[in-house]
Amino acid sequence: MRMSELSERSGVSVPSIKFYQREQLLHDGEHTSATQTSYDETHVERLRLVRALIEIGGLSVSSVRAVLAAVEADIPLDWAFGVAQHAIPRSMEFEPGDEGDRGVAEVEAIVTARNWTVAPDNPGRAMAARVIDSYVELGHEELLSVLPDYAEAASIIARVDLAAVGMSDTRAAMAETVVVGTVLGDALLAGLRRMAQESVSHHIYRKDQP
Amino acid sequence: MRMSELSERSGVSVPSIKFYQREQLLHDGEHTSATQTSYDETHVERLRLVRALIEIGGLSVSSVRAVLAAVEADIPLDWAFGVAQHAIPRSMEFEPGDEGDRGVAEVEAIVTARNWTVAPDNPGRAMAARVIDSYVELGHEELLSVLPDYAEAASIIARVDLAAVGMSDTRAAMAETVVVGTVLGDALLAGLRRMAQESVSHHIYRKDQP
Repeated sequence: MRMSELSERSGVSVPSIKFYQREQLLHDGEHTSATQTSYDETHVERLRLVRALIEIGGLSVSSVRAVLAAVEADIPLDWAFGVAQHAIPRSMEFEPGDEGDRGVAEVEAIVTARNWTVAPDNPGRAMAARVIDSYVELGHEELLSVLPDYAEAASIIARVDLAAVGMSDTRAAMAETVVVGTVLGDALLAGLRRMAQESVSHHIYRKDQP
Repeated sequence: MRMSELSERSGVSVPSIKFYQREQLLHDGEHTSATQTSYDETHVERLRLVRALIEIGGLSVSSVRAVLAAVEADIPLDWAFGVAQHAIPRSMEFEPGDEGDRGVAEVEAIVTARNWTVAPDNPGRAMAARVIDSYVELGHEELLSVLPDYAEAASIIARVDLAAVGMSDTRAAMAETVVVGTVLGDALLAGLRRMAQESVSHHIYRKDQP
């Protein structure tokens, strides 16, 4: 198919496709003449994946490149989780090391309480610690009361995440499931949380309203 | 205090403080002379909140403005949830209405199965539906198997979110807890999920590795 059909099938504009090609997120098409290039289903699939990771997952172009390289390299699955986990959306502007003592201590307490095996450089540690530091800094220590139940919810989620990965039959497919499920799954959870909040809030607070 | 001390105390650079003032995210200081302005603790607190919402929550400046207006207006609490929920990070580039039939149907099935009370315009519906559509479009239908357990985890999370809100003693404080906990809580959950994934993955897959 031509570029215009590729754009229509993938939902990605022609300028964006050209940008992704320059950024090496999309493999070349077949040159059928000096001015004509032909694309196939592999290009459609790749563009849909890139689009989802960027638009829904909020990944940067460089994070997408790292994640795709991991999927293609057919790396061990726990590495694939590591790569997907490090591809944190650019909207969270923090560097590991920014977290404070309180956040680090609270995170370590969770790990100990749940008997989790988590490497010191797991990016989730810094993410969670930074939020905990912010709760304290903003004068909302009451929000720390959510930690045990959030950790329980995270365990439920992780077990089903891993079970879903086990349903694929090749390592490459499993690695792609890891990446898609980890990156897009955050948005899915955020959506379900908002729905559940409204439902619980409705039952608790609506009776106070006029 | 002067601008330089305000910057140091809040962790926000002087150019950013001036930008936030222009964008009306920060109230004016007191003019103590023609060239001197004095700031107080309310300015430090406000800047820390703005910084957390932008850097950790990933909100845009206009979303922060909407969220702060909601906190200050002392609105009913279920409205505060609505405002916080609509302040979806700009990294998720989607509009309500983008979601497809499959995503909408799966979301409705969750609402029915859990007997949730969720308005049609709850932004979580569109977020969840878009991710579900992407799972299907990307050929990862196996990821739909996570939905019942994710919904259960979301219920656990929402109940403890609401319980934390109930610990504040004024409506304004409760509204701020709603905003901070909803926006930053997504990052906290994402962090804990990554930690739990590593731990579960370690126990399942590590034995396959050399």
